[in-house]
Amino acid sequence: MINKSTVKLIKSLALKKFRLKENRFLTEGDKNVLEVLNSGYRVDLLIATDSFLAAHKNAAEKAGKVIPATPQEIKQASLLKTPQNSLAVCELPAQNFLPQSLESISLFLDGIQDPGNLGTIIRTCDWFGIDQIFCSPNTVDLYNPKVIQATMGSFSRVRVFYTEIEKLNKLTVNSEITIFGTFLEGSNIYTEQLPQKALIVIGNEGKGISKTVEKYIDKKIRIPYFGDFGNRAESLNAAIATAVICSEFKRLS
Amino acid sequence: MINKSTVKLIKSLALKKFRLKENRFLTEGDKNVLEVLNSGYRVDLLIATDSFLAAHKNAAEKAGKVIPATPQEIKQASLLKTPQNSLAVCELPAQNFLPQSLESISLFLDGIQDPGNLGTIIRTCDWFGIDQIFCSPNTVDLYNPKVIQATMGSFSRVRVFYTEIEKLNKLTVNSEITIFGTFLEGSNIYTEQLPQKALIVIGNEGKGISKTVEKYIDKKIRIPYFGDFGNRAESLNAAIATAVICSEFKRLS
Repeated sequence: MINKSTVKLIKSLALKKFRLKENRFLTEGDKNVLEVLNSGYRVDLLIATDSFLAAHKNAAEKAGKVIPATPQEIKQASLLKTPQNSLAVCELPAQNFLPQSLESISLFLDGIQDPGNLGTIIRTCDWFGIDQIFCSPNTVDLYNPKVIQATMGSFSRVRVFYTEIEKLNKLTVNSEITIFGTFLEGSNIYTEQLPQKALIVIGNEGKGISKTVEKYIDKKIRIPYFGDFGNRAESLNAAIATAVICSEFKRLS
Repeated sequence: MINKSTVKLIKSLALKKFRLKENRFLTEGDKNVLEVLNSGYRVDLLIATDSFLAAHKNAAEKAGKVIPATPQEIKQASLLKTPQNSLAVCELPAQNFLPQSLESISLFLDGIQDPGNLGTIIRTCDWFGIDQIFCSPNTVDLYNPKVIQATMGSFSRVRVFYTEIEKLNKLTVNSEITIFGTFLEGSNIYTEQLPQKALIVIGNEGKGISKTVEKYIDKKIRIPYFGDFGNRAESLNAAIATAVICSEFKRLS
């Protein structure tokens, strides 16, 4: 039985101001819930069906409190249209401190707004072995439940930092890191020699890379389109463009 | 002023059974609305703000009926959380007949369920000059408003067919088309010699490629992951995997 105040708390975690006030975030989707239970997050409350609890007894023991619930009860508390068998209320971890230096390949997201895009980018980075993502302060919040949902568990492995480009740029001074960004007039990513040390800037869904951030770009690249101008897609979705770029940087590494 | 029965009609178009009953589909998002107005679709009804109508006078004249509306009125009728300045009710076009043969590169989607994924795949194909997508009958409907929304206008350029793999396979007999599919045990897509004539099968989000479809695969490929097994993403999002594959096939073509 989930009481009304718990349902209210859960629903409130859709909004950042309540996540900060409660110092909590919500994890939905069985894969994500198992991930938080098994990877050092502090899970205050696990709400799950009897079958989930039976199947994942060891994991469930790591939660501070467990409420067994019917699928109907979970549906009532959930923010999802089609909830699964569990949800977890977790403590917000402290913000990651910026690393001392940049190694290998990492991303800077310049104002990604769509939670699905951020979540998918995190999942894609996890696949391609890119374990650091920097986000401009106006990028959607990592702990938005839709972001967490779209990561499919990858949020527990990829480190996400929120920082201004200026601070990040300082880490690239006297390093071998090249800062890349996609622009219409950039050079063809398929024929360009791509280094193994890079910071790749991904622009906002509608506006692309901001003027402030553009100043720091060392090398402009583009993903070529195929077909006639004016008779094809004007752009790629931001998460799709990110994946194509990550694939190019990593394909023969 | 949008009357109640129009609002009811629009809302009903979220469901396929009502789209078929009314023989109509809904287009939202200004870019998509302009696309249907300008590309031969029959638009019965355009609902738009005065500023949209003033800015796109020629396009608006192609609609059978125009209702000027305030943003608040559009919000009431819209299926979107943050509607834009226009929406259009269009006639469902007749189903595409299968082509006589397959040329160059096309996709077969084996049960893609998420509307955002289908829409994004269509947009990605449009970018990469892939102009035919075949969908198994259990793939999400092209005219689902969320699919249309995610295509960002590309649904008017990429031809989408719904068909069983058996029928499609007949078109590849005595042709130079190789049927590709991604499997864990497939060969590395980055080092494989990829032909310019291919049918690429994309599996369902959770279950991958079905047994029925697997029989028709000529060549199994995989997108390699980076990092240790058990400590990385288990899979890529279906639209992301599609984009990486399309990029590999087209990159040096």
